[in-house]
Amino acid sequence: MAVYTEVTDEDLAAFLARYDCGRLQFYKGIAEGVENTNYLVRTDRGRYILTLYEKRVNVADLPYFLKLKQHLAKRGVRCPVPVADRTGETLGELNGRLAALITFLDGVSVKRPKLDHCGQLGRALAELHLASADFGMYRANALGPKGWPPLYARFSSRADEILPGLRSMIEVELAAHAGGLPAGLPQGVIHADLFPDNVFFAEGQLSGLIDFYFACNDALSYDIAICLNAWCFEDGDGHAFDRAKGAALLAGYDGVRALTTAERAAMPVLARAASLRFLLTRSYDWLNQPLGALVTPHNPLDYVARLRFHQQARSIADYGGGA
Amino acid sequence: MAVYTEVTDEDLAAFLARYDCGRLQFYKGIAEGVENTNYLVRTDRGRYILTLYEKRVNVADLPYFLKLKQHLAKRGVRCPVPVADRTGETLGELNGRLAALITFLDGVSVKRPKLDHCGQLGRALAELHLASADFGMYRANALGPKGWPPLYARFSSRADEILPGLRSMIEVELAAHAGGLPAGLPQGVIHADLFPDNVFFAEGQLSGLIDFYFACNDALSYDIAICLNAWCFEDGDGHAFDRAKGAALLAGYDGVRALTTAERAAMPVLARAASLRFLLTRSYDWLNQPLGALVTPHNPLDYVARLRFHQQARSIADYGGGA
Repeated sequence: MAVYTEVTDEDLAAFLARYDCGRLQFYKGIAEGVENTNYLVRTDRGRYILTLYEKRVNVADLPYFLKLKQHLAKRGVRCPVPVADRTGETLGELNGRLAALITFLDGVSVKRPKLDHCGQLGRALAELHLASADFGMYRANALGPKGWPPLYARFSSRADEILPGLRSMIEVELAAHAGGLPAGLPQGVIHADLFPDNVFFAEGQLSGLIDFYFACNDALSYDIAICLNAWCFEDGDGHAFDRAKGAALLAGYDGVRALTTAERAAMPVLARAASLRFLLTRSYDWLNQPLGALVTPHNPLDYVARLRFHQQARSIADYGGGA
Repeated sequence: MAVYTEVTDEDLAAFLARYDCGRLQFYKGIAEGVENTNYLVRTDRGRYILTLYEKRVNVADLPYFLKLKQHLAKRGVRCPVPVADRTGETLGELNGRLAALITFLDGVSVKRPKLDHCGQLGRALAELHLASADFGMYRANALGPKGWPPLYARFSSRADEILPGLRSMIEVELAAHAGGLPAGLPQGVIHADLFPDNVFFAEGQLSGLIDFYFACNDALSYDIAICLNAWCFEDGDGHAFDRAKGAALLAGYDGVRALTTAERAAMPVLARAASLRFLLTRSYDWLNQPLGALVTPHNPLDYVARLRFHQQARSIADYGGGA
């Protein structure tokens, strides 16, 4: 949520000259994402996001992210699309960083999704999964079950600072998922971070999906489980699962891509796995806040409450899904 | 250079409903200014900046800044203009902060101004001074000579950490300006911070002035002296004053509003005073960087070099001005 790299008018002009994108009208550093530097760039032809990839990004992953967005856009998914320069390249260099010019998507993300938003999200997620079925590249899920023990090892001794008993709770869960996600689930490209911040609505209609920098290949239904966690709980005192929202999300998805029997059966364990993944990353970020940072990390305790719900769920019916 | 206050879609919609400004298309937190939270807001009617005034801003000053911009815009100065809500108010409340919706200005600021930019800046500064001549409000210059000793007292014991000898250099200058700016100089509203970042150009033509949050009543020629410091030195090894740029700036100004004899005579001492003002604020900021801040403060040493130049200047001719 910050601009790390300052780009001058002269450097930007030299960079944009490589593209057939019109004449610059303004550019502003925007508070978008925490990993990279992002500018909103407006020319007489349109609006773009200029992203400079900072050191936390694995350069080897960039072609996957950029080509995936191009692939999805060709298949009709509304998402930001990298612009090719005059030589056909989508990845350039600016201020010593790899950089890409990406189309800008109108819309506003919804802080507190309502029932209808959840239904639209379910449909869009299924469309994303269908559209990426013939995407030829592969990227492992770095934040899947195999990535959890080493991540946990980096803060295990301090876990109880967040909540007494968190350490033992996490260790029970890690053991439960040690064998990985259930076998026999349809695989494909998942967004893996489709929180409300990453979904735009305009006039109440879903207008696009953004931020594909966690996208990877994994069980498609795990992506649904992430969305159940991200869209269907009421935060605040209750942390209650809203079964009507879950039902809307699942029905929206199922109407576009029918869930298999194995996927339905696995939903509670997938939801539990997804909540563990966010509990781990949020706990780590919570314990490692840079001094003076302007952004407060998400509270990991939201995911303790979600996890407790999933631990007692017995079937997809607990999430509002038909049997 | 940050977003301090997060505004949700619901809160923003409620705020915008008070204005006749069209339907929201997107909003993005932007890295603009260090004092306040700023969002770029786009509706189907146009682009706006939404500013939430954070605690560092003196609330009593806000009407001066907002009304000044309205006054200047009516006189033809291209600057951001506060939008009145349906009841005629320009100052509202959002997320517990005072907030204003302000028109957005196209253009790009120039990192390294060229001769022609300096000439245009000189003309625009004179037009600003003429346009504000009948502005009825008054705000003292909080960062004028009377404000310098208390500011300096807050870091005097550490001044030599920046540069050995800085303490004695500053104290000599404070003594030189203890009586305030020279008497007999035409007074009026000055921008007081018209650095290249605050001036936009489009297609090579000056397209607007922004950031009036240091504006106040003071000697008009002091504003010119600030611009000579901000626009006409080459940074880097030389820190050399570029007399051709100074000549372009002064001739541009003088062509719109003729300098008086007293103003010409005072230019070296005004330039010296202006460089002391920025040396003091930059030194303070340099010694008080928040840990983990993403923005590196401006290096105060640039102003040590400028001050040395001004100390040996004898007349406006040293700045490229005609005698």
